[in-house]
Amino acid sequence: MTPEATLARFREYMVGPARFMNVLSCFELGIIDTLRESPGMTAAKLGAAIGAKPDAVEQLLHLPVKDGLLAYDETSGGYSLDALASVAKADLRRALTYLNMIKVVALRQLFYLTDSVRTGGVVGLKELYGYEGTLYGAVAEHQDLRESWATLMDTVTARIDPWFFDHVDIPPGSRVLDLAGNTGLGAINTYQLKKSPGLKVTTFDLPEKEEECLENFREHGVAEHCTFIGGDVFEGVPQGFDIVLIKHFLDMFDKSDVVRILEGVNRSLEVGGQVNVMVPVYPENIKDTDNYNVDFFPAFFIGCTMGQGGPQKLSTYRTWLEECGFRVTKAITRDSAEIPPDVIPIPAVLCATKTA
Amino acid sequence: MTPEATLARFREYMVGPARFMNVLSCFELGIIDTLRESPGMTAAKLGAAIGAKPDAVEQLLHLPVKDGLLAYDETSGGYSLDALASVAKADLRRALTYLNMIKVVALRQLFYLTDSVRTGGVVGLKELYGYEGTLYGAVAEHQDLRESWATLMDTVTARIDPWFFDHVDIPPGSRVLDLAGNTGLGAINTYQLKKSPGLKVTTFDLPEKEEECLENFREHGVAEHCTFIGGDVFEGVPQGFDIVLIKHFLDMFDKSDVVRILEGVNRSLEVGGQVNVMVPVYPENIKDTDNYNVDFFPAFFIGCTMGQGGPQKLSTYRTWLEECGFRVTKAITRDSAEIPPDVIPIPAVLCATKTA
Repeated sequence: MTPEATLARFREYMVGPARFMNVLSCFELGIIDTLRESPGMTAAKLGAAIGAKPDAVEQLLHLPVKDGLLAYDETSGGYSLDALASVAKADLRRALTYLNMIKVVALRQLFYLTDSVRTGGVVGLKELYGYEGTLYGAVAEHQDLRESWATLMDTVTARIDPWFFDHVDIPPGSRVLDLAGNTGLGAINTYQLKKSPGLKVTTFDLPEKEEECLENFREHGVAEHCTFIGGDVFEGVPQGFDIVLIKHFLDMFDKSDVVRILEGVNRSLEVGGQVNVMVPVYPENIKDTDNYNVDFFPAFFIGCTMGQGGPQKLSTYRTWLEECGFRVTKAITRDSAEIPPDVIPIPAVLCATKTA
Repeated sequence: MTPEATLARFREYMVGPARFMNVLSCFELGIIDTLRESPGMTAAKLGAAIGAKPDAVEQLLHLPVKDGLLAYDETSGGYSLDALASVAKADLRRALTYLNMIKVVALRQLFYLTDSVRTGGVVGLKELYGYEGTLYGAVAEHQDLRESWATLMDTVTARIDPWFFDHVDIPPGSRVLDLAGNTGLGAINTYQLKKSPGLKVTTFDLPEKEEECLENFREHGVAEHCTFIGGDVFEGVPQGFDIVLIKHFLDMFDKSDVVRILEGVNRSLEVGGQVNVMVPVYPENIKDTDNYNVDFFPAFFIGCTMGQGGPQKLSTYRTWLEECGFRVTKAITRDSAEIPPDVIPIPAVLCATKTA
């Protein structure tokens, strides 16, 4: 890369935050919905419709016009949807759920990234919310964080869980533990997607999740088959299970904690017991330009959610599983062609068996 | 653009803030300087050198490796400068000055962009600093804003003023008014670059700038030729000048205020008097992908500095000057090939004469 190209790359970094909020703000202000219903409106009319000054509307619409999301007619001064017109509503809703989560959970917190790296804590949550701890604790206390985060995670789980269970073998009658299973959605999905006579699924998470989890089991009609155990994964994993699921969890930790988790799971299982991991992964070639995990997760995990963590390569997770007493029987990354182009995480599944 | 390409574009927006802080944080943490002095260091050694966990260092270095700024050697696990090695120090310093300004002045404030559009005020300054007003007032009270902002503006002025004065005719002995001339740097540049017998330059700005401005004149040895007048441009422009300079100012306002300023300047001049404007401009074709002003300034002016404003096209400024009683004698945009590739603003000069 020439010095000129390198400096141009810096300009790309510089405009990243402004581009992000400019486009999101056009949605938040209702400009896009208004134009969908009434194409051809001028900045003056849009301003009146959404309660903003026409000058500001005109300014904000330059970028979506430049990028081809909207069309601008020089003669009439009217705006209409261009590329946005042909994006399916569900796709656009999913993309906006991501944008909103990133705005609420990341945009301001990232300011403190360097301090978060130095301290190993999420300094942004402390500075902005007075909260000491991780995002997963902060969401319990702060509605704005919870709504933007939970909305996204429900979307993600609903989209990815079917793929996960397609690739995971859960024999009839298995006793399954969903590690860090939050309020039971993963257990419910396990039961519904892998139903078999005698299948029992247990959500394991912090004791304060129990009430909501059991309520969810009742609501989904799976209370006979699903149970809850309260505890802390770093203090001990419950025994008596054939299969442990670890979904959306290992990427939250640095290696030392991932190893503690995997060793705890290993201790909890009999020889032959299985662990099935789902986790976003970096590409084996970190310079792969199709994979955006590298562009997002390091700053996101360290600066906005955990003060540590971040995904690894599939080969790294394989090695760590082997180091913790497992034999890896399957390790696959989802084909990126199966993932909507706006979605950042590229998930992998690793299945492993406890060796003698 | 296909729906797939549109959704992929949204992913680009999503990663913008994380990319921005990830790269800047590598500099803030001292990783880049450390690698410049000691190439080949591993994440473990870098962590020890800069006081951060190796896991976090490894995570943060994925993106600069992906983007070719750094090189990573799989065998040794060592990092070294790649493209960054051949960027001149002064260029890198300028780019970092921009990145730092955007971090301090924009990153968090942008969160409130939608509210800023709705209210016409900089909601981010109020929420984050308890400051009601514009960035230009806030910098007087908040050191972090002032340092990041003033450092950038001094860099910008030093780089752009020579080009401006190359294109502006200031006949010997002129009486020049530098409108909104802040603390005198523009007046000093005017005198030093356009020196002629009898040339007098006056900085016009808010009265509180007077002391620092006069001190600057003395320090630069131009106190005999430069003076200060305190006042508010919206209440009246001082008379008795042949030439008015308006630099880095019109882009801060919506059309109604730009017109008030230009009408005030027009009233202050005799027929034949001149106004010389320097302002960043949008390209005539807003879809021009070489021009990044559209990607940055709307969100920046509305959300982070003024709650209004933003550049216009050169043709728009020309029209506004004509509407305010001027004949435009020159209107040129700087050739983008003359501007370092990391620099966002593309400036223009408009020279105009008061008509009868």
